[in-house]
Amino acid sequence: MAELNIEEVYRAQMVLKDVARHPKIIGPTALSDKCSIYLKPENLQHTGSFKLRGAYYKISQLSDEEKERGVIACSAGNHAQGVALGATHNGIKSLICLPSGAPISKIEATRKLGAEVCLVPGVYDDAYAKALELRDKYGYTFVHPFDDPLVIAGQGTIGLEILEEMPEAEAIVVPVGGGGLISGVAFTVKTLRPDIKVYGVQAAGAASMVKSLECKKREHLDSVQTIADGIAVKEPGENTFDLCEKYVDEIVTVNDDEIAAAILALIEKQKLVAEGAGATAVAAAMFGKLPVDGKKVVCLVSGGNVDVNMLNRIINRGLAKSGRVCQLELELLDKPGTLSGVLKILAEEGGNILSVNHERIATGTDINNCLLHLEFETLNPEHITRIRKALTEAGYRIVD
Amino acid sequence: MAELNIEEVYRAQMVLKDVARHPKIIGPTALSDKCSIYLKPENLQHTGSFKLRGAYYKISQLSDEEKERGVIACSAGNHAQGVALGATHNGIKSLICLPSGAPISKIEATRKLGAEVCLVPGVYDDAYAKALELRDKYGYTFVHPFDDPLVIAGQGTIGLEILEEMPEAEAIVVPVGGGGLISGVAFTVKTLRPDIKVYGVQAAGAASMVKSLECKKREHLDSVQTIADGIAVKEPGENTFDLCEKYVDEIVTVNDDEIAAAILALIEKQKLVAEGAGATAVAAAMFGKLPVDGKKVVCLVSGGNVDVNMLNRIINRGLAKSGRVCQLELELLDKPGTLSGVLKILAEEGGNILSVNHERIATGTDINNCLLHLEFETLNPEHITRIRKALTEAGYRIVD
Repeated sequence: MAELNIEEVYRAQMVLKDVARHPKIIGPTALSDKCSIYLKPENLQHTGSFKLRGAYYKISQLSDEEKERGVIACSAGNHAQGVALGATHNGIKSLICLPSGAPISKIEATRKLGAEVCLVPGVYDDAYAKALELRDKYGYTFVHPFDDPLVIAGQGTIGLEILEEMPEAEAIVVPVGGGGLISGVAFTVKTLRPDIKVYGVQAAGAASMVKSLECKKREHLDSVQTIADGIAVKEPGENTFDLCEKYVDEIVTVNDDEIAAAILALIEKQKLVAEGAGATAVAAAMFGKLPVDGKKVVCLVSGGNVDVNMLNRIINRGLAKSGRVCQLELELLDKPGTLSGVLKILAEEGGNILSVNHERIATGTDINNCLLHLEFETLNPEHITRIRKALTEAGYRIVD
Repeated sequence: MAELNIEEVYRAQMVLKDVARHPKIIGPTALSDKCSIYLKPENLQHTGSFKLRGAYYKISQLSDEEKERGVIACSAGNHAQGVALGATHNGIKSLICLPSGAPISKIEATRKLGAEVCLVPGVYDDAYAKALELRDKYGYTFVHPFDDPLVIAGQGTIGLEILEEMPEAEAIVVPVGGGGLISGVAFTVKTLRPDIKVYGVQAAGAASMVKSLECKKREHLDSVQTIADGIAVKEPGENTFDLCEKYVDEIVTVNDDEIAAAILALIEKQKLVAEGAGATAVAAAMFGKLPVDGKKVVCLVSGGNVDVNMLNRIINRGLAKSGRVCQLELELLDKPGTLSGVLKILAEEGGNILSVNHERIATGTDINNCLLHLEFETLNPEHITRIRKALTEAGYRIVD
């Protein structure tokens, strides 16, 4: 590739000075007892993610002739919005190819930022093929989401900002999908401050960079599956693979439950909304995946563009995991007063009913019995234990 | 009262310099088409709210003898955490009286910040009476949540920060409960920059300051009812009433639906979690309650300590309001294949099932019919209209 150098990152910083937001690093937080977690909140960035930086810088460096022809990109998410905003600010045309099944909210957000949207029947790969076809036909410049040195230099500005604002940082933790973000950050940090550790985090269900580094060559995953859709990438880039091999200390993985718990912790303790990808660095630090005990650790919260329907499900999962919602199934004698007896105990113990489903005909139960499905709000796991105990002592049978 | 003066606010700023967090103002945001909304995000403050400022400054100014005896406060929420942190940082003892029904999470948060917690049977008023009793008995200093000039001066530091960071602001919008926050901000802003408007916002279900200003004397509400529990105050303070009368341009109200919509907008568009009280200023600006068209408006997001169970309900309400969740009740002919027919249409139209409840015995329906209750995820109101139309055209009867 065109050699990445630190001057490029400084040039990107100048270009982005009045374009990108520069929210302060937040911390130390109480997200971990083992290390001091600080947050670089790129979820508060324009368009809700860091992607604006690389896309904007890339677009700003096009020749006049290239600008005249416009840019094209393929993305269903944060990159699309970054390219759209970058192009519109630079006064040039942008065309974004999206798979036709993309959420309306994302299509609308991209349009609102001034891009023309081309909906392509099929999945991401079809939209990608279409984008290349249109590029070749009309001479648009293709803005790659991660494997372009200028895009990587743009993301590297985050590294500069961390070094300037918090030179006492001992480790920086970065989400990894295609590898553009961590390549920029690791290159910048290791060039200027090689003593600071740079760690990457991938979703366990999409660990293409981890696998590639293990195999010492780029590997392609047949499928990816994670709630962190922003980093569900099947294959790292050529440039990003080389840069990760050279500059990154270690890349670890976190599973979806750990990511969900990190999202919930960021909401409750830090009042910040992160998307799945955006919470992976925090998840890795929270769940002890990294050798950072006692250290000052900056976790990059890369983005916050999570669909609220999904957020709702994540909160529900987190509530269940932390004992604040409980579902119970009871087998009851089918006679008047039984349901009321159960609900009385629940009321006395302070469980707040969410739903009641009382079902008479159920195979697998005694013919005189019925099934009661309860969902209620609780305070913590001990509260659930107390309620289960009270129900059992009153003679009700809990089915598990 | 001891006269409030601007020197006091500057002194508070010096004391709070290394104590309070100073997150940058965020904006301009796209929260309104009519005005440019900027956010002063005090939800990102330590303890999740601005309350730390006033409590900390008050405690820092106690005499050595007062410090020796310790402080007492009464609160089930943000003030408790502010006092606890302020006292612990200043190396003195704090006792917080809480009504015994207070959420365990808040009790635990207060304890973790180093306070001793005294659970008082009954409601807030009982805990308040107990706090005064303990103060008289043991000589603790009572830290009032809003009606103390030093507390007000501490909150006034927010006004200084806004003027320093964004001197071009044309209006500042502030949530109002007891009135401590707006008193400090309005006094500071009007003293230094009388050209900037200062507006207050109360929850419609707890508009004690609005009523008091109308009656030109402090009024006591018999009951308050709002999701903005942080500003559910029955009566303004003496000092805060006087300061609001003198310095505040206007105080308006927002209802719970508007507050919920603002919370959802802050989550989706700004990636910030606000509690009910914290979202009222944004709600007022979003829903056109203020004469700020075309203006640069700084909305104070006063806090983010919302229980996630409550947040979940607010998201659900917001989803329903914005057409992204739909509940339908259908009256169906009770024969095999009917349910499957309905679900087929729903699948074709892209509605994602959340719950299905098929009920045979229902009074009020034809004896051959049954009731089907459906809940499903949708994209927007038009999507719901499309699904309703498809169901109706296929001959299914929607009960409303």
